[in-house]
Amino acid sequence: MPTLPPAHPGLPLAEVDTPALIVDLDAFERNLKRMADAAAAAGVRVRPHAKTHKSPIIAQKQVALGATGICCQKVSEAAIMVEGGIRDVLVSNEVIGARKLDRLAALSRQARVIGCVDDPLGVSQLAAAAERHGARVDVVVEINVGASRCGIDPGAPAVALAQAVAREKHLRFAGLQAYQGRAQHFRTIAERRAAIDEAIERTATTVRALKAAGLPCDIVGGAGTGTFELEAASGVYNELQAGSYIFMDADYARNKRADGEPYDTFEHALFVFATVMSMTQSDRAVVDAGLKAFAFDSGPPEPVGFPGAIYERPSDEHASRSRRQGAPHPRPLRPNGQPARLVRRHPWHGRPGSRRRKRVAGRGAGCAVLGSSLRARMLTRPAHPRGSSRRPSRRS
Amino acid sequence: MPTLPPAHPGLPLAEVDTPALIVDLDAFERNLKRMADAAAAAGVRVRPHAKTHKSPIIAQKQVALGATGICCQKVSEAAIMVEGGIRDVLVSNEVIGARKLDRLAALSRQARVIGCVDDPLGVSQLAAAAERHGARVDVVVEINVGASRCGIDPGAPAVALAQAVAREKHLRFAGLQAYQGRAQHFRTIAERRAAIDEAIERTATTVRALKAAGLPCDIVGGAGTGTFELEAASGVYNELQAGSYIFMDADYARNKRADGEPYDTFEHALFVFATVMSMTQSDRAVVDAGLKAFAFDSGPPEPVGFPGAIYERPSDEHASRSRRQGAPHPRPLRPNGQPARLVRRHPWHGRPGSRRRKRVAGRGAGCAVLGSSLRARMLTRPAHPRGSSRRPSRRS
Repeated sequence: MPTLPPAHPGLPLAEVDTPALIVDLDAFERNLKRMADAAAAAGVRVRPHAKTHKSPIIAQKQVALGATGICCQKVSEAAIMVEGGIRDVLVSNEVIGARKLDRLAALSRQARVIGCVDDPLGVSQLAAAAERHGARVDVVVEINVGASRCGIDPGAPAVALAQAVAREKHLRFAGLQAYQGRAQHFRTIAERRAAIDEAIERTATTVRALKAAGLPCDIVGGAGTGTFELEAASGVYNELQAGSYIFMDADYARNKRADGEPYDTFEHALFVFATVMSMTQSDRAVVDAGLKAFAFDSGPPEPVGFPGAIYERPSDEHASRSRRQGAPHPRPLRPNGQPARLVRRHPWHGRPGSRRRKRVAGRGAGCAVLGSSLRARMLTRPAHPRGSSRRPSRRS
Repeated sequence: MPTLPPAHPGLPLAEVDTPALIVDLDAFERNLKRMADAAAAAGVRVRPHAKTHKSPIIAQKQVALGATGICCQKVSEAAIMVEGGIRDVLVSNEVIGARKLDRLAALSRQARVIGCVDDPLGVSQLAAAAERHGARVDVVVEINVGASRCGIDPGAPAVALAQAVAREKHLRFAGLQAYQGRAQHFRTIAERRAAIDEAIERTATTVRALKAAGLPCDIVGGAGTGTFELEAASGVYNELQAGSYIFMDADYARNKRADGEPYDTFEHALFVFATVMSMTQSDRAVVDAGLKAFAFDSGPPEPVGFPGAIYERPSDEHASRSRRQGAPHPRPLRPNGQPARLVRRHPWHGRPGSRRRKRVAGRGAGCAVLGSSLRARMLTRPAHPRGSSRRPSRRS
């Protein structure tokens, strides 16, 4: 077994092998609870996005706190969730090709697995797969609510596509996918509100047109960690699909609240734990977490607990932390190396979990899961998973 | 088994599941041969860097073409290489902490595993680990040849550290690690030559000082895909550590030759194969390979075979290809989706290979290995691996 786990339950933080992806379980559990409470207060369902964690263990925790099910971005992720006991999975992305669609249709005989279409080709391919597997697959129609990525135009084009779904014997029209992804990281509340107001308007128009055509929407889904309060209060959306809130990446913390302060509804809960492995320059320490330990599409990670330190010049397996002008020098190299906690950026390159892969695993680095005691402990399933506890749906 | 392989030998390219990391085996094998030939012509050894592939199968192919051994960047990679039959492995990075060093020392009883130090702490920690395991570990001293990342200063400080190594009963001084990483992607030959001239000068000074102190260098190692011809011709370096040449990423192709043309000594051999999964806008197609299928630290990937197309706006699992001004529209969405080949960027987020993991595996996407027939075939070990065929070393 060439890859050794970096920690075992009870191991002190200082002895965890690095680089390690670590979860602060206390912050993580507070984040879970905050989203569940916010949705309950607003009277909408939560269907958290599992692309953030790819772990059925975390999905079970979300369901135990009331989530109606979960979202996945890929069929392979959905397969792992169904195998891990999740009973209601929405693949919130267009799926093309018989191989993936056969898998989706077969899965839908084990649990509710909802497909997503924005094109007649998607409808006919999914219908054919469902027929091959003797399944009846729920389908949502994705509409373009402003991001102009995927999604058919709202209104009449969406209605025509929904009717095409409804005509298929092996499909069932289940509602709308109406996610405004670009708005999530708009920095000011004014920008986010303008984008989501437009999304709400486009979605409401389409929901009304569908209702007039005799096609009520069971699901009107969308929203992310950056905007979910707006969709929750809309009276139009009934399912929130936020995912990043459980770990709260560095980039979301750059969003501003209405009062201009940093967005702090959720806490950072996922970190990369690194060790200083070289310090031959007086103003610079080199840590063992580089390009292969982080995603850099939203910029470099931020050192935690080292005021004034900046992370720069990453290489494949190491990177430098130098000090900002006037900041104190990094602490000197300690006998076992100097541990450093770095906040990860969204998205992290996770791998799907399974029953045999109980830990949340980062890229090669493996991981440890930590609680407030600063000793590793296991992330375990809830003692009594409630399965997919669907609350009464609000039909729009 | 939730993760299905995207291909099996003989499968036509059009049927490979996407996103898939694919190797053009013909180009790959030509790249292997070109480096082996260049080193032989220059009379230096090659010790290719395995962080590019993390696959003992590929390492065996390099050894079969004359490589003296391989480099790894992490002890966990070295363990996989030794398990996979590689007999001479240099961990070209500082290693701190008893856990990793115990593993390195234990490995060094199964094969030649060379450690790397730039600090007395590294020497004492590695010596202690070697003693615990009854091993004698070869050690190279890393010097700062201009990149100012890791590495002790050349000349007297390096000699003092080498003497500290030589005094340890369980260590053996094996030479110098003298890699100029920053120079690899300097765009013009003049910039690369200036940086490597400085590296050669610092290295030569140190080699002479070590010789005067009675410490000859078995290994004087460094160089990468961007500069190896300069180190090879230096008369100072005797081992080339280039790794990226086997796949040749998009960024290296932006380097210029002496005549100003793009650097083309090696061919692109590694691609991400994607499918168009949505096309609701007339000027834009959405493919199923996004932020989690590529590393973006050197910019976005480049579409292959679609003149005028640009890759932009990546999301977690999809991205858009839009056309450049005046370029033809993308081909329309085909019944099985439209395959697209995208050149990956350095570094790709690979995972270590092992005997049970025969394929080069990308991030979640899995992979297929392809040859000129455009049908998947397996990457196999050489029929008669030569093991670590050390050529006579040139002592400096």
